[in-house]
Amino acid sequence: MSSPISFLSDFGTSDEFVGVVHGVLAKLAPESRVIDIGHGFPRGNVKTAALALTRGIQYLPEGVCLAVVDPGVGTSRRALAAETSWGFFVGPDNGLLSPAVAMVGGATRIISIENPEAMIPSPGETFHGRDVFAPAAALLATGEATLDELGPDISGEEVTPMLLPLTETKDGLVSGEAWWVDVFGNVQTNIAPEELAGVGVAPGQTVTVKVGSTIHTIPWVTSYGDVGEGETLLHVDSVGLIAIAVRGGRADDELNLAEGVSVSLAGRR
Amino acid sequence: MSSPISFLSDFGTSDEFVGVVHGVLAKLAPESRVIDIGHGFPRGNVKTAALALTRGIQYLPEGVCLAVVDPGVGTSRRALAAETSWGFFVGPDNGLLSPAVAMVGGATRIISIENPEAMIPSPGETFHGRDVFAPAAALLATGEATLDELGPDISGEEVTPMLLPLTETKDGLVSGEAWWVDVFGNVQTNIAPEELAGVGVAPGQTVTVKVGSTIHTIPWVTSYGDVGEGETLLHVDSVGLIAIAVRGGRADDELNLAEGVSVSLAGRR
Amino acid sequence: MSSPISFLSDFGTSDEFVGVVHGVLAKLAPESRVIDIGHGFPRGNVKTAALALTRGIQYLPEGVCLAVVDPGVGTSRRALAAETSWGFFVGPDNGLLSPAVAMVGGATRIISIENPEAMIPSPGETFHGRDVFAPAAALLATGEATLDELGPDISGEEVTPMLLPLTETKDGLVSGEAWWVDVFGNVQTNIAPEELAGVGVAPGQTVTVKVGSTIHTIPWVTSYGDVGEGETLLHVDSVGLIAIAVRGGRADDELNLAEGVSVSLAGRR
Repeated sequence: MSSPISFLSDFGTSDEFVGVVHGVLAKLAPESRVIDIGHGFPRGNVKTAALALTRGIQYLPEGVCLAVVDPGVGTSRRALAAETSWGFFVGPDNGLLSPAVAMVGGATRIISIENPEAMIPSPGETFHGRDVFAPAAALLATGEATLDELGPDISGEEVTPMLLPLTETKDGLVSGEAWWVDVFGNVQTNIAPEELAGVGVAPGQTVTVKVGSTIHTIPWVTSYGDVGEGETLLHVDSVGLIAIAVRGGRADDELNLAEGVSVSLAGRR
Repeated sequence: MSSPISFLSDFGTSDEFVGVVHGVLAKLAPESRVIDIGHGFPRGNVKTAALALTRGIQYLPEGVCLAVVDPGVGTSRRALAAETSWGFFVGPDNGLLSPAVAMVGGATRIISIENPEAMIPSPGETFHGRDVFAPAAALLATGEATLDELGPDISGEEVTPMLLPLTETKDGLVSGEAWWVDVFGNVQTNIAPEELAGVGVAPGQTVTVKVGSTIHTIPWVTSYGDVGEGETLLHVDSVGLIAIAVRGGRADDELNLAEGVSVSLAGRR
Repeated sequence: MSSPISFLSDFGTSDEFVGVVHGVLAKLAPESRVIDIGHGFPRGNVKTAALALTRGIQYLPEGVCLAVVDPGVGTSRRALAAETSWGFFVGPDNGLLSPAVAMVGGATRIISIENPEAMIPSPGETFHGRDVFAPAAALLATGEATLDELGPDISGEEVTPMLLPLTETKDGLVSGEAWWVDVFGNVQTNIAPEELAGVGVAPGQTVTVKVGSTIHTIPWVTSYGDVGEGETLLHVDSVGLIAIAVRGGRADDELNLAEGVSVSLAGRR
């Protein structure tokens, strides 16, 4: 019984890179189902892909997660395999896997993939996705290799973390940031509804939203349909975080928001 | 024996949305083969996706069709599951499924997906593709749920139709419209070859094509190779409809055509 | 036991074409795993797709390779199926398959797909991917058809070759060309490291690179990490060919290189 393998990368679709990794998986784990989490993430943007993986991991079948967004390829960063209660995570040691691993309860063990026998020899420069990560993922999925056989243990402290912005609550104000703008211009913040509740704001009320020096008052509703066309709303999005949207429009444009911009929320003043 | 699931959406490839739906299907229907019909359809364009589904449905393996193009998400439109001789169709009640369902002979039964036990609880706003449509598709594919268990019956008259343009024949003239321009600039009309035959035009003859106030005379040929490079041709395309093309060029530019523009065809005057 | 099918095209992702071919494969070869090599290759660019297939073929599971990049569709070019030690190749007779077939040792037999019983009848113009190539690939994958049943033998000399540029060594200079620029701006040449060794240049040395009338001196290193940020390097890439790259930058811009541009390499003068 071969585990499913969920595969994320920033390889895009204009060449054969994604296909070649699929080929390696099909050769080494012919019984494993492979799920593409996505390959169109912004190139080299580890944080954006890490957040996507964190949002998605609970919906993916337990097994092996293979993730490759790797601006440091060709340098000395390690190749990791982590064991968790969800299954195995395989990818570069650059923070990509860290939040998703934390999301499923943390790693019980982490190794550095170093055994050349578990890799595909390259005719030149190593293509890590094809030669290192895909074989490791396939061998773990089929059970043909254990972590011991892939490389030596490393401690969690040695692993590159993903430094995600924290929120702060002070004087009735929750300060966070826009940490994802989706293709529709909806802005997800890093603020949880519980934090807003902590400063006395409840669903159905109006929220004071501060972006730069501009203050907006926006209703906290359940759904897009609760406001009129073109109106701005605040809601708990499908990931469970406070998000700002414009029905039939783009909240990023409307509120001058982009990934990384600070946002503060409070009750009506 | 789990049925195959064919999946269409406008989610695009820049985030994890398609992957998360695949994850839900893999978890709930681990034995079902999933075929991606496509996820790059123009966002929120229900008609374009509905036509693509209609063109493709006869080539997809019988089983379950999961289609999500849903500009009305967050409003009160229903979630549908329809039973047909081809299999089940699952998607929003906005006309997306209607022409493909009609193409395979119509629905023998339609229900509104309302049973919360057949849905995945969301931490916030419902992501219908992930929380409602994918679980329903998977449960129908595995046979773990019947339509009865998903929700109450609704009548066909309650379902949102897709209003597709009709053709009209009058005074030896067939009037229709350009209803799809493919990536090469080929223009598919909604006119069938039988309609052109009905006004006395046969393959091999020259056709009078009127777009706006401009009249073109174009040969009705079998294949691109029947005209010279750069020349315009009229032919029955691979879907069985009259289409206008330019060999090695773009018919949309050449004839000033776009989706929805009126086109009239007649024999040579 | 149905063979895996690896599928390459230039169909893109904005319509249902890739999905329809997948549908035909799923109907006719329900047990075959299908691997997408990629569908975002530049439209109608046979050479680029042929090179990608050649780079990727050794990493794909043996079975059937279905490749469709077909600017001559609708003309009289043949549909081919070739038997090799790797498995079967199916696609248009325009050079697309030739280098990959050569890479796996050449064809032991080639036939022209002509048997209408092995095709899907089209309601109009033939969509070769859907109606001719996909059924042939599926029938070969399942073993339901032999080459004999698909069409008559043709000799290798009748098949359209892919004319790839050759390198030339003269007076201590290896002349070749840039034959692929990847999405990062890395430039793969058609020069093998053995050719550079043949003129006395070894890894670790500095290479004289001539592009047009400009001469660059570039270190031949093992990996990106061997040079500083923003510096140019020459290395053996993951395919085994000499490539020029800029760490953290674009070599195509830096050296004014594009696909097809001549490049000459020599030792330090």
